[in-house]
Amino acid sequence: MTHPHLAAEDVYPSRVSDRPAMLERKDPVVYGDVAAGAGPLDAEALARYERNGYLCLPGFFSASDVQTLRSELKRLWEQSRDADRNEVIREPDSRDIRSIFAVHRDHDAFRRLSRDPRIVGIARQILGSDVYIHQSRINYKKGFTGKEFYWHSDFETWHVEDGMPRMRALSCSITLEDNHHCNGPLLLIPGSHKTFVSCVGRTPEAHYEQSLRRQEYGVPDQESLRLLTERHGIEAAVGPAGTVVFFDCNIMHGSNSNITPLPRSNVFFVYNSTENRLTSPYSGQKPRPDYIATRG
Amino acid sequence: MTHPHLAAEDVYPSRVSDRPAMLERKDPVVYGDVAAGAGPLDAEALARYERNGYLCLPGFFSASDVQTLRSELKRLWEQSRDADRNEVIREPDSRDIRSIFAVHRDHDAFRRLSRDPRIVGIARQILGSDVYIHQSRINYKKGFTGKEFYWHSDFETWHVEDGMPRMRALSCSITLEDNHHCNGPLLLIPGSHKTFVSCVGRTPEAHYEQSLRRQEYGVPDQESLRLLTERHGIEAAVGPAGTVVFFDCNIMHGSNSNITPLPRSNVFFVYNSTENRLTSPYSGQKPRPDYIATRG
Repeated sequence: MTHPHLAAEDVYPSRVSDRPAMLERKDPVVYGDVAAGAGPLDAEALARYERNGYLCLPGFFSASDVQTLRSELKRLWEQSRDADRNEVIREPDSRDIRSIFAVHRDHDAFRRLSRDPRIVGIARQILGSDVYIHQSRINYKKGFTGKEFYWHSDFETWHVEDGMPRMRALSCSITLEDNHHCNGPLLLIPGSHKTFVSCVGRTPEAHYEQSLRRQEYGVPDQESLRLLTERHGIEAAVGPAGTVVFFDCNIMHGSNSNITPLPRSNVFFVYNSTENRLTSPYSGQKPRPDYIATRG
Repeated sequence: MTHPHLAAEDVYPSRVSDRPAMLERKDPVVYGDVAAGAGPLDAEALARYERNGYLCLPGFFSASDVQTLRSELKRLWEQSRDADRNEVIREPDSRDIRSIFAVHRDHDAFRRLSRDPRIVGIARQILGSDVYIHQSRINYKKGFTGKEFYWHSDFETWHVEDGMPRMRALSCSITLEDNHHCNGPLLLIPGSHKTFVSCVGRTPEAHYEQSLRRQEYGVPDQESLRLLTERHGIEAAVGPAGTVVFFDCNIMHGSNSNITPLPRSNVFFVYNSTENRLTSPYSGQKPRPDYIATRG
């Protein structure tokens, strides 16, 4: 296995040591122009995004928009129930669908949504350049038995497994049901995006086939999580259906299980700067397939 | 196996049919005198307890009380780490302690706490009689990997497995850490205490050895939970350490997992009316041992 990156080049090393480390972020959070009129967000919102690493925007989509998207989601779910496609990820212990990937590529309604001018405008404004979709997916957290997602930085994975060079990407999550405190909402550690938690261990080959169902590598250590929480606290992205959350690629986030009858589904689009295109994975391994990480 | 209760006598049948059922509560919620001065709670608080099935009282214990209790808890935990006693219940997948039972019987500090005049006063006032401890325990929900407790009515189990005749008991939960929305707090369906959800299935003998670690019988069906939630919503018992929650024996409650670094521990005392002493279990099976359900 050849390693195309010299160690000295990698400013965000992870899964290369037996000991975890907390490293300072080497990149801006907001790359764009904060002048009035430079994009959909005002200076205050941009400052908040810079400081907290996320922005929660309730009422971004109207009830009727949400209704349309939910019908599309339902149709897609039914189409996929028995599908034997890699894009369809199932729960660890059952055939139930947990996520569907590459929806911006494969499904008209979600392709249109991924090009929503307001969403793309905000992504461009924050990242200060043109953007493209690095990854898209729909997540469905069932009622009653929805499982937790443990803490992680998306960037850690995208860097190590996909070869994303720098922190110049963001996620946009569009909630299609009401997100309450009790049904396992997205939890974020505000401000944690300014610290890179270098994880221990090595990544096995073709790790992604398992990791999309249950994460075992790229897991931050408890001591770093404890420190980040003491420093910054934890916030939950709650809000009615139609809320949109933008969050930085390196913010520490996760969610608890969901025993309530209230399911949660979200559409996720990851926008990456066109000036931050993927190189070879920093693990030195084979890149993950295109439906998980768009190349070229 | 002889069944000491005729079917006609059991007003709260459960685990006797293949189909779940929602039955109306046949007992009062507040048995006591609501006249001013009849007990620690005023008429408004009693009315709220009657309506919602629980009362959350932040600031019940002072910070210094909490500090003392936490030291006691810590000592008890250390004593019990390698203990091979039935009272010490461990996590399903490890040796980590999840609960310790009969703390009011075995440990001075918790015996004293179980006799706190304000707590006992409230229990007496609600249940309208003398009371005794049916069960006591300390629950510890770890940070990072704390597991969920699925929805249940305590009374369903106490009735079927312990032979508690009627709904005339309550739990008192004393929180020893801050309970936030994000660290798996107690979730309650307010008002659900007025409906008895009869569960399907039969209870195997000596079921309790497993059920304290992972519940498989006496589990309410999803349709009933959906109906109760639509009707009543879900509330979380959040508050700083020292908060005390009183809740009716039949209220539907549970909690989600806890991925945060913030652990949660609670002391639980269950007070039963001396006019509601245990008979033979309604399952017709052998009673559970005394450390789980006090007899005589």
